[in-house]
Amino acid sequence: MDVQPIATIRTPYLEKFGIPRQAGLVEQAVGEICLHPAFDLPGVYDGLAGCSHLWLTFWFHHQTDKWKPKVRPPRLGGNQKVGIFATRSPRRPNPLGLSVVKIVEVTSHPNRLKVSGVDLLNGTPIIDIKPYLPYADCLPHAVFDLALHRPQTLPVVFSAQSEEQFDRFRLSKDLVANTLALDPRPAYHQDSRTYGTCFEQWNVRWEMVDRVIHVLDLSPLGEATES
Amino acid sequence: MDVQPIATIRTPYLEKFGIPRQAGLVEQAVGEICLHPAFDLPGVYDGLAGCSHLWLTFWFHHQTDKWKPKVRPPRLGGNQKVGIFATRSPRRPNPLGLSVVKIVEVTSHPNRLKVSGVDLLNGTPIIDIKPYLPYADCLPHAVFDLALHRPQTLPVVFSAQSEEQFDRFRLSKDLVANTLALDPRPAYHQDSRTYGTCFEQWNVRWEMVDRVIHVLDLSPLGEATES
Repeated sequence: MDVQPIATIRTPYLEKFGIPRQAGLVEQAVGEICLHPAFDLPGVYDGLAGCSHLWLTFWFHHQTDKWKPKVRPPRLGGNQKVGIFATRSPRRPNPLGLSVVKIVEVTSHPNRLKVSGVDLLNGTPIIDIKPYLPYADCLPHAVFDLALHRPQTLPVVFSAQSEEQFDRFRLSKDLVANTLALDPRPAYHQDSRTYGTCFEQWNVRWEMVDRVIHVLDLSPLGEATES
Repeated sequence: MDVQPIATIRTPYLEKFGIPRQAGLVEQAVGEICLHPAFDLPGVYDGLAGCSHLWLTFWFHHQTDKWKPKVRPPRLGGNQKVGIFATRSPRRPNPLGLSVVKIVEVTSHPNRLKVSGVDLLNGTPIIDIKPYLPYADCLPHAVFDLALHRPQTLPVVFSAQSEEQFDRFRLSKDLVANTLALDPRPAYHQDSRTYGTCFEQWNVRWEMVDRVIHVLDLSPLGEATES
């Protein structure tokens, strides 16, 4: 069975490290959906004006590892194995992801669609776009004991240098703060070294001290750190 | 991009006519997921014991019509056109469906999974199974003005003959009543003829009189109506 991407999404996340592990956790993470020409036809978005949220089915295009029956989700600290179908892990038999995002802007003529709360790598191929149907999709009594609540967040503080750079580079401090607050460090590597995470065209350097994330500085991607 | 079915689902719906138009509308509609051998491996369901609901991504395998940019959803009476990405219509660029279903039974060793609230044709290929994550997927403030509420239901009454047949054939009256109550008639053909709808191995004959559904009788599929 053959699927073809209908669109590509542009997001602020230029590498896998740091991307929120579910949709809806960082409202400042805005994505723009760029329909491929064969699907960029008049009217495809008509009717979305009264719709608040969409499901995106997408392809984990940077996922190349073979799937395994059991995986260790970072959510569970990386030391508990669960069945692949009890997780949203990208390493699955068909590397399809599912994210619910909020519509920020939608127009027809021309077709334009911006969404927020994305947890997708820049350039991710979009396979389908469907409306969120509140009466069918919102299940207030649903439970899942392995992931009942939103992940805990950590405090984030900014150096004076980074504060000045956010202003100057026009990068959203809230995007960076709310993304890093989710603690992107891999579960198996909780050390205190300095990390770099890409947002738009910037590399943000940060470190963790006493469970507080300290943002050190920003540098343009592909260049050495300013200092 | 190539996807392969991981499973097939057995459901009571043996033909397209009559299938609920979303998941979760008929709780008596139970489906059994039969993993294909390559995916029926130890542990794939481990962790689902504390999970109430699942997302099924499936292939609309009986959908052969080419997609169009705009469609007329039955929900809107069949006379209003909306963009394909504002609907869950099966006639879409990639014929992938998305349904949230309730877990009725899940075991490992051997892998067994039964779910309820299905809106799937018997034999539908399942592409992916993912847990419903309440904190990410349940959006109480989401709105969609074209489909805010569950569809209205119609009253269903049973003939004496059909009552006796439900007992004798051990077919669930609630499954039939709750499915037909959703009014499966196509929007463009609201006449009052006699319809036949298949449930498991039975053909159920019914008609609509004054906005009430009258169930007439049952007959085994492939045979003439008992009378």
